[in-house]
Amino acid sequence: MNNFIFYSPTEFVFGRDTETQTGALVQKYGARKVMIVYGGGSVVRSGLLARVEDSLRKAGIPYCMLGGVQPNPIDTKVYEGIDLCRKENVDMMLAVGGGSVIDTAKAIAAGVPYDGDFWDFYIGKSIVAKALKVAVVLTIPAAGSEGSGNTVITKVDGLQKLSLRAPGVLRPVFAVMNPELTYTLPPFQTACGIADMMAHIMERYFTNTKEVEIGDRLCEGTLLAIIKEAATVMKEPENYGARANLMWCGTIAHNGTCGVGCEEDWASHFLEHEISAIYNVTHGAGLSVIFPAWMTWMTEHNVDKIAQYAVRVWGVEESDDKKKVALEGIARLKAFFKSIGLPVTFKELGIENPDIDRLADSLHRNKGEFVGNYVKLTKKDSKEIYRLAL
Amino acid sequence: MNNFIFYSPTEFVFGRDTETQTGALVQKYGARKVMIVYGGGSVVRSGLLARVEDSLRKAGIPYCMLGGVQPNPIDTKVYEGIDLCRKENVDMMLAVGGGSVIDTAKAIAAGVPYDGDFWDFYIGKSIVAKALKVAVVLTIPAAGSEGSGNTVITKVDGLQKLSLRAPGVLRPVFAVMNPELTYTLPPFQTACGIADMMAHIMERYFTNTKEVEIGDRLCEGTLLAIIKEAATVMKEPENYGARANLMWCGTIAHNGTCGVGCEEDWASHFLEHEISAIYNVTHGAGLSVIFPAWMTWMTEHNVDKIAQYAVRVWGVEESDDKKKVALEGIARLKAFFKSIGLPVTFKELGIENPDIDRLADSLHRNKGEFVGNYVKLTKKDSKEIYRLAL
Repeated sequence: MNNFIFYSPTEFVFGRDTETQTGALVQKYGARKVMIVYGGGSVVRSGLLARVEDSLRKAGIPYCMLGGVQPNPIDTKVYEGIDLCRKENVDMMLAVGGGSVIDTAKAIAAGVPYDGDFWDFYIGKSIVAKALKVAVVLTIPAAGSEGSGNTVITKVDGLQKLSLRAPGVLRPVFAVMNPELTYTLPPFQTACGIADMMAHIMERYFTNTKEVEIGDRLCEGTLLAIIKEAATVMKEPENYGARANLMWCGTIAHNGTCGVGCEEDWASHFLEHEISAIYNVTHGAGLSVIFPAWMTWMTEHNVDKIAQYAVRVWGVEESDDKKKVALEGIARLKAFFKSIGLPVTFKELGIENPDIDRLADSLHRNKGEFVGNYVKLTKKDSKEIYRLAL
Repeated sequence: MNNFIFYSPTEFVFGRDTETQTGALVQKYGARKVMIVYGGGSVVRSGLLARVEDSLRKAGIPYCMLGGVQPNPIDTKVYEGIDLCRKENVDMMLAVGGGSVIDTAKAIAAGVPYDGDFWDFYIGKSIVAKALKVAVVLTIPAAGSEGSGNTVITKVDGLQKLSLRAPGVLRPVFAVMNPELTYTLPPFQTACGIADMMAHIMERYFTNTKEVEIGDRLCEGTLLAIIKEAATVMKEPENYGARANLMWCGTIAHNGTCGVGCEEDWASHFLEHEISAIYNVTHGAGLSVIFPAWMTWMTEHNVDKIAQYAVRVWGVEESDDKKKVALEGIARLKAFFKSIGLPVTFKELGIENPDIDRLADSLHRNKGEFVGNYVKLTKKDSKEIYRLAL
């Protein structure tokens, strides 16, 4: 086990009606003026935005609004938010939505007190030294952004999709999580969220670090819970228990609980970021295509942990033929993804002829000569994995 | 799943040599003067205390010392610490040790800024409104006190052993955790720590709350990791990986990770507190006696979760005869405890003729007419459970 720091100071307020506590929580964390960031019309139509505004008014917290954040969030919205925050003298971002909204709020939070271009943080030109406080009312369990210090933004000019880690300053101070808010998610979006949280766990699970039994068991247990509840939630979208379990799984998948003390991989995420940047597909759907392909490639190059995963998560019978065990586990993962309506090939993702050279060129231009850690992928390897997803 | 708040703001700095970071961490958390609290001679003999002092000196942090905390820590040491802190104008407690040392440090932290008797907090006469900061260098993985806001103290006059929960103010700001510091723990103390962390998980796991799949899976996974690593560590006390896994299990067993959203039980802990208060046995050894007895009683009164535990944790084959499944699981738990040198009866604990009336009278005087939640135990029930442990 490697040395590690576990630090998850976010206060997660979880359960029915918890959004009514938003104003009191904003007050507790000392904000004087809030900017509510949100996406499309669903939070308006559902009445959630009105309830959050009401809660802020009751707590006497002034606020302004920034709507229209789109999936695969873009830099132009961040610039708009930074300008508005400065004009309105905002000191806390309140993201009401899912990962895209939260990631935009984090980017704005980092950009407001910074003299240069916020994009500097994403290209590694500068480090986030301070930021406005970020808080969350979560509506989509998927990205885990409510419990992480990470943010992913796409630069419209050149379609560069990059991630930034700044847990010391960008981790939300609180996250309100009412599973009932997820009842109305379209099935496809629910499924994409499931793929995303599973991927967050698997990026940590597939490691060469030895002696990480507790990390492994937490990963496996969380995956088992997700798989069980996914089946329920697709049949019964208003099943509170299933929605609640999934929502919490999405958070612990990405707040550091899973995979402590291991070297993480993240190649599948980076392989996917190129797909969603260029073809504007949903991140979770891109992951359900690319992760099984990555795992299939690994059966030839580093099979051990894939085989352990097949046995412990998918109940494949143990055997000396680890490759066979691993491939059976991958087959069950794919069948699971398909059962909840997710694509497992480029074609099913709606991309008949992906430009694999462009994807791989962009990936290695953004991330360097080698990508990932479980096996350090060269551009040739990345192309092979993209091809396995055809 | 019930509504819950997950809030674990402690910064856990985990791994080899991390105690050398103590001074820098004290500085980061803004302390001006520290009181080091410790127990017996082992932290002196091992050189740990000297390394921690050295780290404080390097960071320019003045400190004073309070040694001599005993297992099953007592109120008189707390009064001594409160006096010393006030005299020395201390603003942070630094506990170097295990649960007893940390719990004493927390009691002092609560007592220093309070005008009345600190014992008021333990008997529910007053609520902890503020406290000195508490930080930890952990040497015994067991109590989980490094990640909790709980403390247990015994009042010498009357041998009343009571617990206090004040997570808002008493949770450590940081905990330094170097698994190497646990190499020299005597086997019996290692085993007692294992029983204690398993009990912390099982107090949460045995619940009537429905739809807690993720809580269950995290509990089961952590128990599986503990069981595996326990076998290794008893054979190879200097196995870093096994020590590291166990140490982290001890923390997540008690920081809220396990058992989210469920009604917790805690009857076994309270049944045990009476034993260790009156007979001064080690808490973990008392738990390895009382928990199987509590579970055995439950096979007649609320068998479901005990049977699930038997299947998922101990690999017992599923069957319609849940009682049989549950009893087989309990038999395996007892065999495990015995395999690591723990007692599973009063007699093995060295108490030939426990005064069951006195134990039960004291328990229900301290905790009220009903104890626990999985089944609310009357005094008659408690006596039956004590008898099952004979």
